Amino acid sequence: MLAAIGAANGGDATAYGADDLSQRAVARLCELAGAREAYLVFNGTAANVLGLSLLLRPFDAVICAETSHLNVDECGAAERVLGCKLLTVPTPDGKLTPRLVESRLDGLGDQHRAQPRVVQIAQLTELGTCYSLAELAELRACCDANGLFCYIDGARLANAAAHLGCSVADIAGCADVLSFGGTKNGALAVEAVLVMGDEVATGGVFQRKQLMHLASKMRFLAAQLTALLDGELWLANARQANAMAKRLASAVEPLPGIRLRYPMQGNGVFAEIGQQQAATLQRDWDFHVWSAAADGTCVVRWMTAFDTTEAEVDAFTAAIRDATVSRETNSSRP
Amino acid sequence: MLAAIGAANGGDATAYGADDLSQRAVARLCELAGAREAYLVFNGTAANVLGLSLLLRPFDAVICAETSHLNVDECGAAERVLGCKLLTVPTPDGKLTPRLVESRLDGLGDQHRAQPRVVQIAQLTELGTCYSLAELAELRACCDANGLFCYIDGARLANAAAHLGCSVADIAGCADVLSFGGTKNGALAVEAVLVMGDEVATGGVFQRKQLMHLASKMRFLAAQLTALLDGELWLANARQANAMAKRLASAVEPLPGIRLRYPMQGNGVFAEIGQQQAATLQRDWDFHVWSAAADGTCVVRWMTAFDTTEAEVDAFTAAIRDATVSRETNSSRP
Amino acid sequence: MLAAIGAANGGDATAYGADDLSQRAVARLCELAGAREAYLVFNGTAANVLGLSLLLRPFDAVICAETSHLNVDECGAAERVLGCKLLTVPTPDGKLTPRLVESRLDGLGDQHRAQPRVVQIAQLTELGTCYSLAELAELRACCDANGLFCYIDGARLANAAAHLGCSVADIAGCADVLSFGGTKNGALAVEAVLVMGDEVATGGVFQRKQLMHLASKMRFLAAQLTALLDGELWLANARQANAMAKRLASAVEPLPGIRLRYPMQGNGVFAEIGQQQAATLQRDWDFHVWSAAADGTCVVRWMTAFDTTEAEVDAFTAAIRDATVSRETNSSRP
Amino acid sequence: MLAAIGAANGGDATAYGADDLSQRAVARLCELAGAREAYLVFNGTAANVLGLSLLLRPFDAVICAETSHLNVDECGAAERVLGCKLLTVPTPDGKLTPRLVESRLDGLGDQHRAQPRVVQIAQLTELGTCYSLAELAELRACCDANGLFCYIDGARLANAAAHLGCSVADIAGCADVLSFGGTKNGALAVEAVLVMGDEVATGGVFQRKQLMHLASKMRFLAAQLTALLDGELWLANARQANAMAKRLASAVEPLPGIRLRYPMQGNGVFAEIGQQQAATLQRDWDFHVWSAAADGTCVVRWMTAFDTTEAEVDAFTAAIRDATVSRETNSSRP
Repeated sequence: MLAAIGAANGGDATAYGADDLSQRAVARLCELAGAREAYLVFNGTAANVLGLSLLLRPFDAVICAETSHLNVDECGAAERVLGCKLLTVPTPDGKLTPRLVESRLDGLGDQHRAQPRVVQIAQLTELGTCYSLAELAELRACCDANGLFCYIDGARLANAAAHLGCSVADIAGCADVLSFGGTKNGALAVEAVLVMGDEVATGGVFQRKQLMHLASKMRFLAAQLTALLDGELWLANARQANAMAKRLASAVEPLPGIRLRYPMQGNGVFAEIGQQQAATLQRDWDFHVWSAAADGTCVVRWMTAFDTTEAEVDAFTAAIRDATVSRETNSSRP
Repeated sequence: MLAAIGAANGGDATAYGADDLSQRAVARLCELAGAREAYLVFNGTAANVLGLSLLLRPFDAVICAETSHLNVDECGAAERVLGCKLLTVPTPDGKLTPRLVESRLDGLGDQHRAQPRVVQIAQLTELGTCYSLAELAELRACCDANGLFCYIDGARLANAAAHLGCSVADIAGCADVLSFGGTKNGALAVEAVLVMGDEVATGGVFQRKQLMHLASKMRFLAAQLTALLDGELWLANARQANAMAKRLASAVEPLPGIRLRYPMQGNGVFAEIGQQQAATLQRDWDFHVWSAAADGTCVVRWMTAFDTTEAEVDAFTAAIRDATVSRETNSSRP
Repeated sequence: MLAAIGAANGGDATAYGADDLSQRAVARLCELAGAREAYLVFNGTAANVLGLSLLLRPFDAVICAETSHLNVDECGAAERVLGCKLLTVPTPDGKLTPRLVESRLDGLGDQHRAQPRVVQIAQLTELGTCYSLAELAELRACCDANGLFCYIDGARLANAAAHLGCSVADIAGCADVLSFGGTKNGALAVEAVLVMGDEVATGGVFQRKQLMHLASKMRFLAAQLTALLDGELWLANARQANAMAKRLASAVEPLPGIRLRYPMQGNGVFAEIGQQQAATLQRDWDFHVWSAAADGTCVVRWMTAFDTTEAEVDAFTAAIRDATVSRETNSSRP
Repeated sequence: MLAAIGAANGGDATAYGADDLSQRAVARLCELAGAREAYLVFNGTAANVLGLSLLLRPFDAVICAETSHLNVDECGAAERVLGCKLLTVPTPDGKLTPRLVESRLDGLGDQHRAQPRVVQIAQLTELGTCYSLAELAELRACCDANGLFCYIDGARLANAAAHLGCSVADIAGCADVLSFGGTKNGALAVEAVLVMGDEVATGGVFQRKQLMHLASKMRFLAAQLTALLDGELWLANARQANAMAKRLASAVEPLPGIRLRYPMQGNGVFAEIGQQQAATLQRDWDFHVWSAAADGTCVVRWMTAFDTTEAEVDAFTAAIRDATVSRETNSSRP
């Protein structure tokens, strides 16, 4: 990645994306995904906001999972910057279904209601689950039947493609607009917004600038993307992360006092453990406690990355085993 | 009401609220509610948006009931115009409680999350229920304990005061900002935004203009408000509407095939009836089907107004009885 | 006007514009202007914001006169609510010309620049001047040649039609969207947004609600509009106001120490007088000092209305003469 | 720069700015500027928008030069994202003065007008000119006298400090909030927003996230900043760029047919040359034609950078001389 950026550094270059490196990177990405246009931005929140902005009229609403990154973790960027309403839906596993989408369509055509316009999903979801291609096709059909657009937050799209064993285009084909994440897959800071459909609004270059994500030295973003595309590094990285997550999940699943909370379908392991156990682990390991319950348990999120090693997984597994055993021992005392 | 507007029509007057009539009306309303400032606007959505705008920083969120008018029936005005996130909470009866509020505070201080800042309630709620003064005090205490503001949507505040047998100030005292509705209580088109607390942002006059609700001929808004305040017409109107709702609720409650869905605590009767029965009634009567269930029943909303008469209620009751009986008869047939 | 509102008060009516009175009023207005759709709102700022919102993409800019009401007197509503940039142009008399419009088009197609999209003019302008039909046609041609929409702020459109001796449709035909003002022409509070062209965005009903200008008791807005349309009251009112402005202008023009600042082409007289003289007059008369100069003079705006009488004009003229004479006398003393 | 990023790459690190490298970089920058807080973002438009957002209430306006980057080159980001009005002022040289600021204050306190709140200047300005410390002090006094904040766009602050021979703190002390640019001074993509005053709104971390500029791998931004701060590289880079601009300006100033358009006070040379001459030069050299006049001349902008060499300047100078001479020769022919 750094070598690629270094290479981009040579010589002078036209600013704001007009350079050759940027244009080639964008063209390659479009080819990979079967996309019409691609816009590079610095991070995932910007990709989501820019992508949605291409699909929304001022009075439109976005249907999304209650647990989605868009709803929970972007500090209200969509509401502030786009002014749109999020119609959130509780889900068992972070995934929308046609039935869940249709439960939020009752306001269609009613002048008192923000108009449902976009179904926003994430692939992988925020809970680490992955839509199958069949599930994506059903959502696409649901969108078509109801005059809705489909936006896919693809911050972890590489992990999804690796998990499904499909191409980026297989997933992208279900969306009108989607993002393709680089940062979580080995890049320093680059994400792409991909435009698939013909009915998507034009003007992406203006929106990117206005939404404050036009890079003057675009070639450094392009270099990161190019490095990911070269030799399918994006896929190798994603496979490695997924494999490590699988190794971790397999190792901890049999442990007493641990339960996998959601199906492990990518590079995130969500597990239910005791809060005390989690606290013990957090002394030495950095991870996120997703939610805590009144019964003393909590759900933790253990993410693996492109550079996670087997040794790291094994050491972490051992630490979990220690914490579990001591807890079980403790809890067996009166 | 029209006579009052007619009287306001005499002679020339200074525009944009600087006239005597406007200033006196505002002063009287402030006195009634114990408020520091009052801003007249044309409708309830504007009152809510202006009122909230005085309480919100750009990155703030509003905690409100999922069923609130703000969330459901204002076409996303808060999101578009204020750019704020609504943190919606499912409720059994349209009412927030401290426990429900606290369930949405987990993002406080987390830079990835819009910051909970305002607890928004409606008095009456959108489901026709009424907070007791004790419940309001508990919410106020919850706000104080968590550094939150309280906003009350008072489109039906008069009905609430009439129901509780308390003063406007008794309710207003629990809020930092609230609205006081005129339109649903006999006026043509006037609502007021009342500012109670000292910590509320200044600049209401600028925000009202910018939010497009400064009336050049303000005296006509003031005249409507004055007519409501004179001789406590606002209270007489609300009492009449409430009494008629009570008459209706008492009459239909014993009927077979009807169940009151929420406690009747103002001027709205929410009843569960068969969808067929509802459709029959709607041929001659204009009311809103609130929601429909898979079992063939639905919830209907029957609102009474300041000018609803006993005769109207009785005629409607008779119609309901007819629809019910015929339905029961029908449904007893195989 | 009040009688019309009173008549609208009889009986029950469906809310939010679905009543007969509202639908008939809108249909009549559309016919008058040759418009496709019309939306009633409460005031002029809302009409401008709603109208522009139907024409703008998120990254668009509006070309308007520096002195326009939109730019100067709406407290930044367009920027806050629509998020659009105003590309303001200095003008000699409040009127845009094709040359002035074209001076702001250099950013077209440049991703660093908000994209010029709408030419916004007012008819009458904020300086009381009136575009001839030929001038309007030239602006329309300029818009067509450059892919721009034309929006007309018609708060004083009636006065313009009266001045030009043309129909509303003659003016409206040059616009894609325009407003038609009632409040300044005798109504209490009603303006209409008229949609002319087929390329204008749909969704006006949603935008009106979201922009907080859907009236629940729409029939009272419709009644005001109907009163204006009946027997061409709108035109009679405008002619009366224009005639009184002409009477005033003719009377003061010959006075020493007074100079008409802009051509008098409607119901507003803009005059240059001494600041001391203006202050003297303001003791007894309510008018606006438009701007003050370092040489001790100022520009004052004297507006006439549908209910201004000859006696009032004559009394005011006398007062001006007194102020002028005394000033001249004063200033002749050392 | 790349070595610094490479070093940041070692080991694991906490995300979103909590890592040591990020915190140290921010602390060092605050010390350099005498600032209270600093927020790293990806580019200059974001820095301006975030910085202004800390100073603005919803109804506020920003006074800025008509030629400012904020007004001209950010695609209306301030209007769209902040919803604020820009009160633009024509200037002779890109610099505001107290007199120019005061010319836009007539709306203060008037509810129909967006309220002037922030004086926005750039140091260097967009026209390459530099405020002296005395001029900055005068603007600061003007702000204090009128209750205004001062924001400095410091995309080229390093060049200004180098030109003035002063510290960053000397300039920053005149602002309430300012940006400090890295990208134009050798970094790949990093700018900082610096908060000076105590009256500035809190919540910068939330706003940065909401405005889509929180970097998950913040350490790579910090590494760029650290590289600039180490051994005062920022100053060395700026001095080099300024020296090259001076070399260029000195060389072209005596040439016939060329006139320096603005005082050369940093790293930008603005020159008036013939449009034909400019076109000739653009065949081999990449620069921006700033504006074109009807008389066949234009203003060009020639920027130097931290890595511009004497050889490059000399080659460009020679090219200019060639273009000039041939033009002069041409134009001497009838």
